Amino acid sequence: MTDPSTWLPAQRSALAALERADRVLLTGHMRPDGDCLGSQGALARALEQAGKTVHLVNPDLPEARYDYLAETFPYRAFEDELPPHDAVVLLDCHEPGRLGAMGELVAAGAATKIVVDHHPHEGDAWWDEAFLDPAAAATGCLAHRLANALGVRPDAAYDRALFTALVTDTGWFKYSNTDLETLGIAAEVVGRGLDASALYRLLYQRGAATEPAAIGSLLSRLRYAADERLAVVDLPLDGDDVPRLEDADVVLDILRSVETVEVVLYLRELADGACKLSARSKTDFDVNRLARKFGGGGHAKASGATIPGALEDVRERLVEAALEQLQPRG
Amino acid sequence: MTDPSTWLPAQRSALAALERADRVLLTGHMRPDGDCLGSQGALARALEQAGKTVHLVNPDLPEARYDYLAETFPYRAFEDELPPHDAVVLLDCHEPGRLGAMGELVAAGAATKIVVDHHPHEGDAWWDEAFLDPAAAATGCLAHRLANALGVRPDAAYDRALFTALVTDTGWFKYSNTDLETLGIAAEVVGRGLDASALYRLLYQRGAATEPAAIGSLLSRLRYAADERLAVVDLPLDGDDVPRLEDADVVLDILRSVETVEVVLYLRELADGACKLSARSKTDFDVNRLARKFGGGGHAKASGATIPGALEDVRERLVEAALEQLQPRG
Repeated sequence: MTDPSTWLPAQRSALAALERADRVLLTGHMRPDGDCLGSQGALARALEQAGKTVHLVNPDLPEARYDYLAETFPYRAFEDELPPHDAVVLLDCHEPGRLGAMGELVAAGAATKIVVDHHPHEGDAWWDEAFLDPAAAATGCLAHRLANALGVRPDAAYDRALFTALVTDTGWFKYSNTDLETLGIAAEVVGRGLDASALYRLLYQRGAATEPAAIGSLLSRLRYAADERLAVVDLPLDGDDVPRLEDADVVLDILRSVETVEVVLYLRELADGACKLSARSKTDFDVNRLARKFGGGGHAKASGATIPGALEDVRERLVEAALEQLQPRG
Repeated sequence: MTDPSTWLPAQRSALAALERADRVLLTGHMRPDGDCLGSQGALARALEQAGKTVHLVNPDLPEARYDYLAETFPYRAFEDELPPHDAVVLLDCHEPGRLGAMGELVAAGAATKIVVDHHPHEGDAWWDEAFLDPAAAATGCLAHRLANALGVRPDAAYDRALFTALVTDTGWFKYSNTDLETLGIAAEVVGRGLDASALYRLLYQRGAATEPAAIGSLLSRLRYAADERLAVVDLPLDGDDVPRLEDADVVLDILRSVETVEVVLYLRELADGACKLSARSKTDFDVNRLARKFGGGGHAKASGATIPGALEDVRERLVEAALEQLQPRG
């Protein structure tokens, strides 16, 4: 995987474009997650070591939980202009629309446009170069392949960034995308001295003392449908105990731990009259397909959407669509 | 690690004793967990392939969640006698007392007594041979080292058993014992075709539909002490929503996710006038030391005890002992 001679021609061409550029702008999607930020960090390290000028500009600043990455990598939030660059690389997304206000500027710019992503691609290619692999568990795997081809000398910051990317998108090695590449990289990185448990603590064990009760309160709002194959939790705007968004994963994990549950839907009412959906699947139920019906998207096992409408109404439409998509039990 | 020439003489001697035996009895501690059962399965495979007769007899039958191991490996519960054997191997424990009613029979028997364990050993050696390594994340790692030295040809059952042992004792690779050996074995096993996510589903996603609400109810009983450095949850015998015991880990994980929390204590009132303690540490607070004060034990980061007394009284004594042991915040 790290040997370019085994790559697709388009992937080798994307590598060559990176090698040609002197000034590289790395960017990604709105509210960048660990895979987006981590793959940017890893690729930035490799490009810097190759003597290039690297800028890290995203639509939004990293969440506080990624502060240990931000200490090393100077992530900036887009304001109104982009630093001068020869190539721009979109990591963990491939549509300018995912870049918010900076998307148009990137799409219209003169720089070489490169996408590095593991999300399934539909529609036309607007870019100049692409390193795509929907079979990769994380964009971090692709950044690692490119970084190795660029001759990276991995240091602690590189390893932290890479490990963050992998664990974010594999649910700490428990989702079905966990494969030889992800565990092999994890072993490599831990073998170089990364403390996995310390990183777990930074990422997932810095919650507020009020969170356990908030999680409990959210769990009390659980409703099942379709013989407990569908689990739905919703959080109204005026809820007493509103857990911070980063908790949703814990609740989604608990709901997935129920044997009968195939699909989990978490709906959070937003202030602007819309609802934020997080959908997860344990089976071959494709939550990407479900989210796309409501203007969102993602992966087959994990997707999301922002859906206009009041909570009650959105929940009803969503559950109806999910029930329609649910196959008779085999 | 899998090359005997790098082993301690005592470890090579334990291997030789296994090689000499024709009929081997594998056993372990009461209420055998995934590391105990998994390391037994892995070692059994290697011994069978070496042409030996293997018996798997534990003080208790495996819990239902390990049914996928029990399908392949014929675990039996001790009744009143032991099958004929030349060597008996204690896996994941090293004291006859941990074997319940069969402990005395094992200790008094004529067979070669071998212990294979990663728990820290205190006191006298009563055994003939020992393969001990308290630095190993799981007894499964030791079983894997022995199995390799015995020339095991890993098959799907071997890989499932080994992976089960590793993930049980590393908290699915998130505890501080997660190291190059555990992740290297995980990569090896997944590279041979083990589906990590399918195994996660078998182990942790077959809960009852009532569990999320029960977890929520337990979380509502949370009390903090010592500026939220200590988190205590207790479950009275007459609680309305009594979660099944296997859920405790989920609740303990949620409590550990609070930034300030260093120690988590979970107390469950038993029917016989005693309480069952599960203790977890996020820092260098040694919960093994705490549990030993109450007649229990385990590891520095995870331990347990069964403590006589009423819930209120036990909780008070336990919290007092924990506060005494808690260092002033550094």
